[in-house]
Amino acid sequence: MTPLAVTPLTGVPQIAAGDDLGALLAAAIELLPADVVVVAQKVVSKAEGRVVDLAGVEPSDEAIAIAGADEDPRYIEVVLRETVRVVRRRGSLLICQTRHGFVCASAGVDRSNASRPDQAILLPVDPDASARGIRDALPVGVAVIVSDSFGRPFRQAICGVAIGCAGIAAVDDRIGAPDDAGRPFAGTTVHVADELAAIADHVMGPAGGIPAVRIRGARFRPDEGGVAATVMPSGRDLFA
Amino acid sequence: MTPLAVTPLTGVPQIAAGDDLGALLAAAIELLPADVVVVAQKVVSKAEGRVVDLAGVEPSDEAIAIAGADEDPRYIEVVLRETVRVVRRRGSLLICQTRHGFVCASAGVDRSNASRPDQAILLPVDPDASARGIRDALPVGVAVIVSDSFGRPFRQAICGVAIGCAGIAAVDDRIGAPDDAGRPFAGTTVHVADELAAIADHVMGPAGGIPAVRIRGARFRPDEGGVAATVMPSGRDLFA
Repeated sequence: MTPLAVTPLTGVPQIAAGDDLGALLAAAIELLPADVVVVAQKVVSKAEGRVVDLAGVEPSDEAIAIAGADEDPRYIEVVLRETVRVVRRRGSLLICQTRHGFVCASAGVDRSNASRPDQAILLPVDPDASARGIRDALPVGVAVIVSDSFGRPFRQAICGVAIGCAGIAAVDDRIGAPDDAGRPFAGTTVHVADELAAIADHVMGPAGGIPAVRIRGARFRPDEGGVAATVMPSGRDLFA
Repeated sequence: MTPLAVTPLTGVPQIAAGDDLGALLAAAIELLPADVVVVAQKVVSKAEGRVVDLAGVEPSDEAIAIAGADEDPRYIEVVLRETVRVVRRRGSLLICQTRHGFVCASAGVDRSNASRPDQAILLPVDPDASARGIRDALPVGVAVIVSDSFGRPFRQAICGVAIGCAGIAAVDDRIGAPDDAGRPFAGTTVHVADELAAIADHVMGPAGGIPAVRIRGARFRPDEGGVAATVMPSGRDLFA
């Protein structure tokens, strides 16, 4: 059987606000229909200008209180502005629900891989739309995932996850597909986009030098539903 | 750059209790040092005889109460026996902490891919030991991951995760590695084994016909720590 292959895109220039990320990725590697391009969130955010200069941030009293002695209250202020609900808190560590519905540390606001130490990078406003925009610059039939890495309850360490996608069903419904004894699976849905984002994170590594990977040989269904629709509705979530 | 390649192992016979799984996998595909073999938990459990015949299970009053009208109380009884703590419950759906420390639906007890409908497959007693046992039958320098697929809080659908490993550091500590602006990452650790298990789950699919994959080109550090050590200690877990 043909292996699934994950190839890093090297040679992509450092991305700045306003860059046509899709065109730069398309120029970096050969793409065929049914390929999946996974792009790191930080690169997407930089192209979209989702970078905040902390020098211009006035922290609220709440941010100052949360930051305490160890954290920069301006950073906490930026995190709170991206947050619709603080789900858990330990000291200055905030697990936040973002406007998109994602639950993650610091509402996804990151100071790593910013161009300067006093900058913070925010998640894209609409990562599914970001993915659609990138896909428009790629050959027809190529799917796009925007990936980040989140911590998870109950397990240590972070893992790549999908925060946006286009041209691929993020969740693949396996209901009705028979198991190897011929019985239908009951209610098994797999987060295809997360599984692909996980290996993309592994190949990209954390340092940011590789902004994207091409995955060839993935099995997916073309779909425009996006990732946002696969966030667990709070009414169904047992851990909210 | 060389792509990372994930190749399914086909042609492995159906596994039964007592089979030498390592030898069967070694015979199925060429393996070189630094390859990672990811094996599906169900196959490992079958080889280890971790299969329960529900006909012989006497449900407790608690299991009968939880099962209600919709679930098989004998199945719930088996789940409870594998559980050290029920973390959340909705009707007959139990999110359980297993003896290994994993938090997952039904303590990982599964009726899919059992050989008969009245059988349930349990997680291995010690999946890290299972991985070490398999690795002993493989060429030197090959790492092994035992994978399952778990649901996650806050996100819909399941995703491949590592429940055991040998010869690979499950969690890779990135502390001190510089980001692309040359600053050290602060406290960033990545769950390498989970990221590899995720793509393995994608390539294996849910139906059980592909019991394992070979991953070539992964970046990992040889280590004998296993996965169990990477479960979040309950004292540090914000969601327990």
